[in-house]
Amino acid sequence: MLGKYKAFWLDKNDNLVVLDQRLLPFEEKTVTLSNAKESVEAIVNMTVRGAGVIGNVASFGVYLAGRESIGDFEKFQRLTEEIRESRPTAVNLMWAVDRMRGLVTDGIDEACVNLLKNEAIKIADEDCERTEKIAHYGADIIENIMKEKNLKQFNVLTHCNAGWLAIVDKGTALAPIYEAKKRGIDIHVWVDETRPRNQGANLTAWELSKADISHTVIADNTGGHLMQHKMVDMVITGADRVAKSGDTANKIGTYLKALSAKDNDIPFYIAIPASTFDFTITDGINEIPIEMRSADEVKYMRGLDKNGEPQELQIVQEASPAINYGFDVTPARLITALITERGVCSANIEAISTMFEDLI
Amino acid sequence: MLGKYKAFWLDKNDNLVVLDQRLLPFEEKTVTLSNAKESVEAIVNMTVRGAGVIGNVASFGVYLAGRESIGDFEKFQRLTEEIRESRPTAVNLMWAVDRMRGLVTDGIDEACVNLLKNEAIKIADEDCERTEKIAHYGADIIENIMKEKNLKQFNVLTHCNAGWLAIVDKGTALAPIYEAKKRGIDIHVWVDETRPRNQGANLTAWELSKADISHTVIADNTGGHLMQHKMVDMVITGADRVAKSGDTANKIGTYLKALSAKDNDIPFYIAIPASTFDFTITDGINEIPIEMRSADEVKYMRGLDKNGEPQELQIVQEASPAINYGFDVTPARLITALITERGVCSANIEAISTMFEDLI
Repeated sequence: MLGKYKAFWLDKNDNLVVLDQRLLPFEEKTVTLSNAKESVEAIVNMTVRGAGVIGNVASFGVYLAGRESIGDFEKFQRLTEEIRESRPTAVNLMWAVDRMRGLVTDGIDEACVNLLKNEAIKIADEDCERTEKIAHYGADIIENIMKEKNLKQFNVLTHCNAGWLAIVDKGTALAPIYEAKKRGIDIHVWVDETRPRNQGANLTAWELSKADISHTVIADNTGGHLMQHKMVDMVITGADRVAKSGDTANKIGTYLKALSAKDNDIPFYIAIPASTFDFTITDGINEIPIEMRSADEVKYMRGLDKNGEPQELQIVQEASPAINYGFDVTPARLITALITERGVCSANIEAISTMFEDLI
Repeated sequence: MLGKYKAFWLDKNDNLVVLDQRLLPFEEKTVTLSNAKESVEAIVNMTVRGAGVIGNVASFGVYLAGRESIGDFEKFQRLTEEIRESRPTAVNLMWAVDRMRGLVTDGIDEACVNLLKNEAIKIADEDCERTEKIAHYGADIIENIMKEKNLKQFNVLTHCNAGWLAIVDKGTALAPIYEAKKRGIDIHVWVDETRPRNQGANLTAWELSKADISHTVIADNTGGHLMQHKMVDMVITGADRVAKSGDTANKIGTYLKALSAKDNDIPFYIAIPASTFDFTITDGINEIPIEMRSADEVKYMRGLDKNGEPQELQIVQEASPAINYGFDVTPARLITALITERGVCSANIEAISTMFEDLI
């Protein structure tokens, strides 16, 4: 069905339905977004998250903005600007909004709205194709490492969630894992719980268990020990923004795992569609804006109480402040390579400029 | 008062009273230990934790074992062996039990029991003196860094809890911080929450707020980002066992912070009393036994519900297994120096062998 994906889809009224990712894994509920404002809210409050899906909700959000702005181009501009500014780090968001807005240059009519709807679907369909290619290139790397090291089982460590909940139907970091499973590889995934919002424990573990893929949830502190003891064959994560140097912004804590992978000679890969590049930026550490989110995400924790009811607990005492940076930047020197829809690309300015020359 | 410390003390019946550290910061309750078995339980279930206090509860536990074994030396041997084996990583535990057992070589009578009680108090008193010296040596380092870098404020990052809850009345890693505050230094502490048991958020933040020391709780993932952006001037942690090479076992995740400190040229210190050395071990990574604890510590989380009642939530879905290594080992090459009661010692076999020659 046109416009039907796993993490979001259009209903019969052409409203956008999204899985409420804040409630997983304990509740599976959807939220319906019928206008631009609701799309912004869903992105800001993390009903949806993950660079890819944020981009998709943004592009469908631009369609919804068009639908409610017929004859009022200024309103369309204002609403779509709010979407574009809803979160600062993931560049797919800006990329998707800019691409959508490029279709509407002076006024909004019914025909424009149709154009926007089809473009949003097209972006999502293209994302599907991209993740399919990332899956194949990534699984090839896994097969090569296994052959080279004569491994019977393959252990991947991942941080946060870059599965189909983050990018349509397959994911980026998880795509090669799904593909490896399909190829009959005995694969096991170490899932960083990914504090403070636990996207690993809540989302990645849920996705993997649904796909019957062997996995183990670990505290974010654990990866270094596992790598020292040769229990990790590869680290793979997604990204929210990659500078043209290869410096990569991803969920806070990714940098620590990259350091540990380097220290233990373990390959560290970033899986991304080309829309994750920001070719205007070279120095990722100093130039990529890092979102600071509410301290309450550190101080409160969601889970199930002993009656099986979802509940929230305060886990840091009132007297202590907390701070919550959402992302960190892994310098290119720590990254083995980028797995993209165009193939595997070294994380340096020359390789990136060559492979993505037409996009710069 | 003889035998009165902040985290544990003898009551009028000479039973050992300990703060129940599992309940902090939301409840301040004590548990009374009146025999060896209760001491073992308190160590195993982490009513008490922290290398130093584990050693103290073990030495008082040997006294309690003596008290219930008068005339039965075999029973004394058996009970104290159970104490010695209650947790595998912290070496102070073995050190304290061995020192206590050294006093009783053939039989147990009333006089022996008195001897044991006095020795346990003596060990705790000696710990007090040691932490006092660690405080001074550590604060001197802070003052030197501030002078050298012309800093007005000093930012320390610490992992887990090595304050007075972990070692009598002052701590190891926190001792220099308390001393710096006393010297009028404008100090701020980044407190790693320290998953899975949150000793940072629960214990270190509680200690620091009681002492009116400025601090901020962060997810364990955050330290790398802070270090990249020059928001950390020094990292300091305690340790559970230090090999004669300087390789250091401490709470899981310490290694990741050490890597990040190295990568950003930030001094990384370990504060320990000499009883934390294990001179029988050279290769910390391969020789120090790492305790594996219950997966439930990862899968469940304690906190306050919206009525202010302490409660526990399940935070990882049933379908996903978890694993829980309690410690990791930071290689000596990542450690700037060890802060001990004898002074500041480089983390290498030559320096350690020279400064602690008489103990080897």
